[in-house]
Amino acid sequence: MASLGEEAVRNKQVILRDYVCGFPKESDMHVTTTTTTANLKVPQASNAVLLKNLYLSCDPSQRTRMTNYQSSTYFLHARQSEDMAGVAKVLDSGHPNFKKGDLVRGITGWEEYSLITPPATETLTKIEPTDVPLSYYIGILGMPCLIAYAGFYELVGQFAKLMGCYVAGSAGSKEKVDLLKKKLGLDDAFNYKEEPDLNAALKSYFPLGIDAYFENVGGKMLDAVLLNMRTGGLIAVCGMISQYNCLHKPEGVHNLLHLIVKRICIEGFLVHDYDHLYPKFLEWVLPQIKEGKIIYVEDIAEGLESAPTAIVGLFTGHNVGKQVVVVARE
Amino acid sequence: MASLGEEAVRNKQVILRDYVCGFPKESDMHVTTTTTTANLKVPQASNAVLLKNLYLSCDPSQRTRMTNYQSSTYFLHARQSEDMAGVAKVLDSGHPNFKKGDLVRGITGWEEYSLITPPATETLTKIEPTDVPLSYYIGILGMPCLIAYAGFYELVGQFAKLMGCYVAGSAGSKEKVDLLKKKLGLDDAFNYKEEPDLNAALKSYFPLGIDAYFENVGGKMLDAVLLNMRTGGLIAVCGMISQYNCLHKPEGVHNLLHLIVKRICIEGFLVHDYDHLYPKFLEWVLPQIKEGKIIYVEDIAEGLESAPTAIVGLFTGHNVGKQVVVVARE
Repeated sequence: MASLGEEAVRNKQVILRDYVCGFPKESDMHVTTTTTTANLKVPQASNAVLLKNLYLSCDPSQRTRMTNYQSSTYFLHARQSEDMAGVAKVLDSGHPNFKKGDLVRGITGWEEYSLITPPATETLTKIEPTDVPLSYYIGILGMPCLIAYAGFYELVGQFAKLMGCYVAGSAGSKEKVDLLKKKLGLDDAFNYKEEPDLNAALKSYFPLGIDAYFENVGGKMLDAVLLNMRTGGLIAVCGMISQYNCLHKPEGVHNLLHLIVKRICIEGFLVHDYDHLYPKFLEWVLPQIKEGKIIYVEDIAEGLESAPTAIVGLFTGHNVGKQVVVVARE
Repeated sequence: MASLGEEAVRNKQVILRDYVCGFPKESDMHVTTTTTTANLKVPQASNAVLLKNLYLSCDPSQRTRMTNYQSSTYFLHARQSEDMAGVAKVLDSGHPNFKKGDLVRGITGWEEYSLITPPATETLTKIEPTDVPLSYYIGILGMPCLIAYAGFYELVGQFAKLMGCYVAGSAGSKEKVDLLKKKLGLDDAFNYKEEPDLNAALKSYFPLGIDAYFENVGGKMLDAVLLNMRTGGLIAVCGMISQYNCLHKPEGVHNLLHLIVKRICIEGFLVHDYDHLYPKFLEWVLPQIKEGKIIYVEDIAEGLESAPTAIVGLFTGHNVGKQVVVVARE
């Protein structure tokens, strides 16, 4: 946590004990302290970057990296404290793109200090100073919002750009539904976990059918959406949170025949394919935040120790707003 | 079957007794004779067309019209002998586009004589004389091939146009697999009903993964394909024969998470959206047939009485090649 002299530095870490099976539990992780990052310096003649982590992101997609999948390059295992999106300060750098004192966003470790070596340094991007909170760079200015931007502007742009389009949201708790309707200004919203008949619910919210659906739930929700899509509709698939904790295989989706009937296009995408859009996205989103046109809500967990609870909470619907873990404020 | 005088004409018909549940059986249909088409003339001052049906098509997609689905405009019920693709001769016409003696293709009835009234007349297209057999207009020159043409040239054109692309086919019997490999010239083929492990089979046929898949089976086959798609792959969905006879709901598809991982695009389509391509398709395909570059195989059932057996056979893999019912040869 702090320098103990020239050679030894304590580094608190959250470690996965093993691959996770089913819903993650706090006991799947433990908080430990190592002294492996010597002296807060990068090794001599290396092109690595030593980071002090400030804000770490909790995203449902992290769950997919905790499973022992085979035959997929995306589902890398995360038995070590790695692969967390975060905002950090550069303490030392042998890399030409970064210098001491820089603030960066990118993939870092679930720990206080991270030594990032190439090629992982390619995920790091220097943050240019703005007057919005730094933690925003793992939320509204980070991956979760870039994916929404890419999803709507690249894939279903014609709909999102229609200023008067009707938008109904779906969330997993009453509190979140209230947030969507009362604070975020959606036309309507419902709790997908409590609707006894999702098909009937969607029919009532979309009596004319759904033109575009931003898929992050999967399973029964996707089945109900397929029944309610309009001809020529588009489904952008960015996540399927309901499926990440399945013990055996993911739930079956039964209504794919509607793809033919309604000439639906379903397209999956990964945000990193759209990294090139980030500057354009930032240019668009920053004024919207400053002018209050986009409302952003964070759910802050204090301290690295709170990380296991925070990530477990994602899958029980505990968080309201973007889940952030504060490791250090500067 | 023939004129019995000025007023009464016998018309043999195949009628569905009721909606079909599960695999269709011959006993779901019966062959009957009516005398409703009076005098082989269209009613006075009508713009209808009276057809003598020559060749009727048996397609798996007809099965979907035999089910009592709700809330879908595509799954029209077919309790009457209607909605069959066919080739017919015009016996009488009050419609400006057709005259006595014309040969037409389009949607007609499962019977000897059909009175087609607007707007159903819009499905009829006059056949310009060519030197290929008339029955080809419900097969290689009809819907099943236009859908393949539209699927590959409109959706996955870049792959189909690569002359050297590797193509492996999947079929439901040894005889069909032999046909694909030995007569139709595919690089390889396998029997999807007999592979004990479809995932392993696809891995062996496509060690580098699948770029484009033309989906006509659904269920377990689609699940195995999803596991074997390459990043950025395309799936054109035209049918799901394995799902048409499900007693309750269609089989679940479990591997949709791969859509995200591999940024796959799945698009459903109906051939009638591509009707405008037909002239272009015909221009392309006719020389290919005449030069023997496309091999076309028909499975001929003689007589309207054979229609129930022919359609039942589609779902047990009985037919080898395009299933045609010959009602009359001229």
